[in-house]
Amino acid sequence: MTPPEDKRYRITLHPSGHTFEATAGESLLKSAREAGIHINASCGGSGVCGKCRVIVRQGELGQGLSEKLTKDQIAAGFRQACTGIVNSDLTIEIPTEAGKLIGGLSTQVPEIHRARLKKDDIEELRREGIFQPPVIKLFVELPRPSAVDNMADAKRLIQGLHNQYDERNLVISLSGLKKLRRVLREDDFRVTATIARPVRPGFGKNFLINIQSGNWTNRCYGLVVDIGTTSIYAQLVNTDTGKILAGAGDYNGQISYGEDVITRIIHAETPSGLARMAELAVSTVNTLIHQLLAETGIGPEEITSITLAGNTTMTHLFMGLEPHSIRRAPYVPVTTFFPPIRANDLGIDLPPHCVALFFPAISSYVGGDIVAGVMGAGLYRTQALTLYIDIGTNAEIVIGNREWLVCAACSAGPAFEGGGITHGMRAAKGAIKDFSINPESFEPMNITIDNQPALGICGSGLLIIVAALLNHGVIDPNGKFNQNLPTTRIRQGRSGYEYVLAEEEENGTDHDIVINEVDIENLIRAKAAIFAGVKTLVEEVGLTIGDLEQIILAGAFGSYIDLDAAMTVGLLPEVPAEKVLYVGNGSLMGGRMSELSNHIRRDVVEVVNRMTSFELSEVTNFKDQYIASLFLPHTDLELFPQTALRLNAWRTKTQTTPKKT
Amino acid sequence: MTPPEDKRYRITLHPSGHTFEATAGESLLKSAREAGIHINASCGGSGVCGKCRVIVRQGELGQGLSEKLTKDQIAAGFRQACTGIVNSDLTIEIPTEAGKLIGGLSTQVPEIHRARLKKDDIEELRREGIFQPPVIKLFVELPRPSAVDNMADAKRLIQGLHNQYDERNLVISLSGLKKLRRVLREDDFRVTATIARPVRPGFGKNFLINIQSGNWTNRCYGLVVDIGTTSIYAQLVNTDTGKILAGAGDYNGQISYGEDVITRIIHAETPSGLARMAELAVSTVNTLIHQLLAETGIGPEEITSITLAGNTTMTHLFMGLEPHSIRRAPYVPVTTFFPPIRANDLGIDLPPHCVALFFPAISSYVGGDIVAGVMGAGLYRTQALTLYIDIGTNAEIVIGNREWLVCAACSAGPAFEGGGITHGMRAAKGAIKDFSINPESFEPMNITIDNQPALGICGSGLLIIVAALLNHGVIDPNGKFNQNLPTTRIRQGRSGYEYVLAEEEENGTDHDIVINEVDIENLIRAKAAIFAGVKTLVEEVGLTIGDLEQIILAGAFGSYIDLDAAMTVGLLPEVPAEKVLYVGNGSLMGGRMSELSNHIRRDVVEVVNRMTSFELSEVTNFKDQYIASLFLPHTDLELFPQTALRLNAWRTKTQTTPKKT
Repeated sequence: MTPPEDKRYRITLHPSGHTFEATAGESLLKSAREAGIHINASCGGSGVCGKCRVIVRQGELGQGLSEKLTKDQIAAGFRQACTGIVNSDLTIEIPTEAGKLIGGLSTQVPEIHRARLKKDDIEELRREGIFQPPVIKLFVELPRPSAVDNMADAKRLIQGLHNQYDERNLVISLSGLKKLRRVLREDDFRVTATIARPVRPGFGKNFLINIQSGNWTNRCYGLVVDIGTTSIYAQLVNTDTGKILAGAGDYNGQISYGEDVITRIIHAETPSGLARMAELAVSTVNTLIHQLLAETGIGPEEITSITLAGNTTMTHLFMGLEPHSIRRAPYVPVTTFFPPIRANDLGIDLPPHCVALFFPAISSYVGGDIVAGVMGAGLYRTQALTLYIDIGTNAEIVIGNREWLVCAACSAGPAFEGGGITHGMRAAKGAIKDFSINPESFEPMNITIDNQPALGICGSGLLIIVAALLNHGVIDPNGKFNQNLPTTRIRQGRSGYEYVLAEEEENGTDHDIVINEVDIENLIRAKAAIFAGVKTLVEEVGLTIGDLEQIILAGAFGSYIDLDAAMTVGLLPEVPAEKVLYVGNGSLMGGRMSELSNHIRRDVVEVVNRMTSFELSEVTNFKDQYIASLFLPHTDLELFPQTALRLNAWRTKTQTTPKKT
Repeated sequence: MTPPEDKRYRITLHPSGHTFEATAGESLLKSAREAGIHINASCGGSGVCGKCRVIVRQGELGQGLSEKLTKDQIAAGFRQACTGIVNSDLTIEIPTEAGKLIGGLSTQVPEIHRARLKKDDIEELRREGIFQPPVIKLFVELPRPSAVDNMADAKRLIQGLHNQYDERNLVISLSGLKKLRRVLREDDFRVTATIARPVRPGFGKNFLINIQSGNWTNRCYGLVVDIGTTSIYAQLVNTDTGKILAGAGDYNGQISYGEDVITRIIHAETPSGLARMAELAVSTVNTLIHQLLAETGIGPEEITSITLAGNTTMTHLFMGLEPHSIRRAPYVPVTTFFPPIRANDLGIDLPPHCVALFFPAISSYVGGDIVAGVMGAGLYRTQALTLYIDIGTNAEIVIGNREWLVCAACSAGPAFEGGGITHGMRAAKGAIKDFSINPESFEPMNITIDNQPALGICGSGLLIIVAALLNHGVIDPNGKFNQNLPTTRIRQGRSGYEYVLAEEEENGTDHDIVINEVDIENLIRAKAAIFAGVKTLVEEVGLTIGDLEQIILAGAFGSYIDLDAAMTVGLLPEVPAEKVLYVGNGSLMGGRMSELSNHIRRDVVEVVNRMTSFELSEVTNFKDQYIASLFLPHTDLELFPQTALRLNAWRTKTQTTPKKT
């Protein structure tokens, strides 16, 4: 039903002749926004405000009709850009009231620059010779026992694997031994052996964890789980091909006990609270596993391994380790390395041969999810000096390359998740996720998630809004509104000055949706904490921000972030957009790598051991860095040369604009 | 209450002046028998027959009175040797009717030669540097965490053990991690760590399996279990000192399903039969463990390891491995190597940190009990060419030294356990365990277990009886009775000729207790199978019986066996008695060694791998050897030079004895 991803149409603007591309089936408004074309739209793209009308001069725009348009207007080719669907090449005109023309070209605002998705590079693993799943299947045909060859079944199997595959140091697990006699004889001594390799070849045994009669070598399956504080995601992977066969996600069952790790820890400290926390998370994982198995028709006994990653608290709770000291200075977890554990022993609904491996953590606040991301993204193997960052309430920062790695966690506060902002909200339907501003009328172009009437601002939207306000001189580098602009959208509100994004009648709430100076201050503090963390870390190793060659973004926020906006407000260091990669869910990516490459399982120990963790509160420089970052983008504009140029150009321009009198 | 073991008194025989020693508190009859002095005694030493009367000429014999003695006789010093207790030096006279004199000396018969007990030689282990328990405890005092030293609890402990003891490759188990936070803080970061070593140092991790607050390094305990088909024995060992703290035994709970391994296997093949068999044996072990812990006041959480050994079937049943193929040609067990398993997983009532190690087996009928004995007795480390033999219904034979080892099992039948013999019985109260014969009157001297009225003949008694009958020409080398002897004790019975050991009125049954030619034939077949097995094995490696330098006996039968009798009938090869050692329960001995020396755990794998197992039925030579052994002692008398000499001397003598007419 969905059109091919890459089908694109060309949109030509009349009269300028400027063109941009739009994705087939996408709304014209969204396509324009992504190309950096501003069209006023207050309601978020839901067709309510009727402000985004355009005139279709050539081609046919799907839908785009509404009661806001008169019959005459429709006949004249007027359509609403927000509900208009691009199905062909088009020539359109943006009327003055919808998006004032400047020099014959429609008002242009920065294009959306999202990070490129870094895909699993199975081929790269193969090329580097590290595509070596920790669990493999081998098929052997064994000689039948006889009076002169009556060795034990186990020895027969081990010898067969030795003769045919040069396997050594094999040990058969108890569960394997229990069915060995029957399985060997079911298909006349033709069997498939499932072998779990030691992490370091030659250091430890090869465990023969399962035996099946017949040849099953093409059915090798592993599970990957990301235990997030909010949500748990799982994927089923074919460890022979590296392909993801299915994925599923659900809220972490613990969420009824609080949204953040601290409330979970507090509950875990009550009698039987820890057991309850473990049970809830495990039960969520079990639900996901059943879902994945049902979807793919794979039997539970065919799963041979499971890799899990989560932050330090989540991993502690999952395994039933006391998290008490994680929330109290000096923030000591029980452990950062987790032994391999039979999945069964944790209550995971998998066969007894299935071993659960947890990604190790670095510290109480840099967890296995981050380590998984670092491993999955190949940070520890790259030559480029890289910043790996996962932005949430806590931001985890890793900097380094194949030679060294440092990390830290900093508390950013909930701003990037829509928390602590007057009309902030999670990235759900109706959240303003994208925004531009008309440079002359200062009218907004709001785009909401699922084109629903606007309900509030999500984290990525907030970043884009503040960057746009700054870019167009609506706010100054302190985050204060310019009260002299010719617009009624800036007004005095209950928390100081505010900008009205969507009026009550245009949005899906019973109030105007605004962004005020307190909101902007919160954003500034959040981005300051993160940028100061990055700068402190870089400088602790004797380098400068300018030395960073690559940024890897992880986590939900990372996929939506507009890079120009992030650099404009001073959240991320300025690097060329093409040097920024997005890895999606770093936990899952790392988990997949761990299911496909035993090298990663070995290397992760070394990586964790050599990663230097900084407690930012203990680094004297950090506080100064933080204070210096409490500006947009920063007190030291030399750190943001592109933004500085742009702001300067704008400032010069606005200074020549006649003031209101 | 029991007198010191080594208190001995001197008994002088009147009028010969011959003396022998008696143990204080022991019956005079038993002491005489052990010294090779014959005193007639039909009832087994229970005071019923009144035949064993002696005259006490000097000193005081305790008890020894009975209604069989008249007042006058008592006044004259007559006493019954069987119930008379030696409490002082004595001079006694054996009247003609109780034990005819020959040449002025009381009738002398072969002394009892029992094998010397080989004790655990902890000192030897220490001298050889292999006293290295696989599980040890170390005490550390750790620095408290602080803002500048906030490493994880696990890392703190591991680093402490590294700094103080140079411990490396440590991994903390999940159960250890679960209590780590609490335990570290209970005694201000002073803790005792329990570490389980890998079997091969440097090959695998050191598992930190338990953590206790405070210093507990002097409390290291391990369990040792022998899973016998009939009985299960357990011992609790201090693995720091090597001392056995307590021992306990009970019937194997499976015994209600049959006395031998075959009936157990048959039951295990029924639905849920295998689970039931496992459950019964495990439950017996649990009972013994609770008993040992209660007796010693040691807590279950203080037990750090458990070593088990049993025959191949018992081990399979205990672990829930299908024994089906063990009882069917070509006799294939599921496995001969058993992986280390959490004791908990088998249902053993021990803490989760406790790992159960099973001794590996060689084949379906040479099991872990034999391997344990071979390891415990140091057979694999000795230079002397040794025969290790465990005699029961099946006899397991191992021959070799530090350089090579061969083994085989042979089916001896139940004769040595008192089975298949007309009046055979287990070695219980009332069983004739010792015997001699008056060379002229052919009257018996029966000694029963616990001096109870005779009920039957146990295995070791049978061997002594047959040897005595042969030695005194009562039977010939074919096991047939000499019908020309001047005694009514030899008579025609229901199964051919028989010798009356104890008449009905003298014994504890409602019939005469006899030994007949069929019984003797059974014994001959049993001993022939064993001797042929030994000879076949020796010859398969190109040696001769005469090359054997040492015999090690294991098992219950081994401790009671009279070596002269065993060599006289041709069960054991003739070696000097001082070259025969008895190791008692070889399983337990090996288990103790395994609890005290990780070297043994490593070496056992190598020993088992290089031990050549012979299937005697497949060796052509065996059948001939067996047939050649169906004589007393053997068709080839050169194999038994001492016995040949003795028999020859006797034959010469009896030929000069006037025949009855």
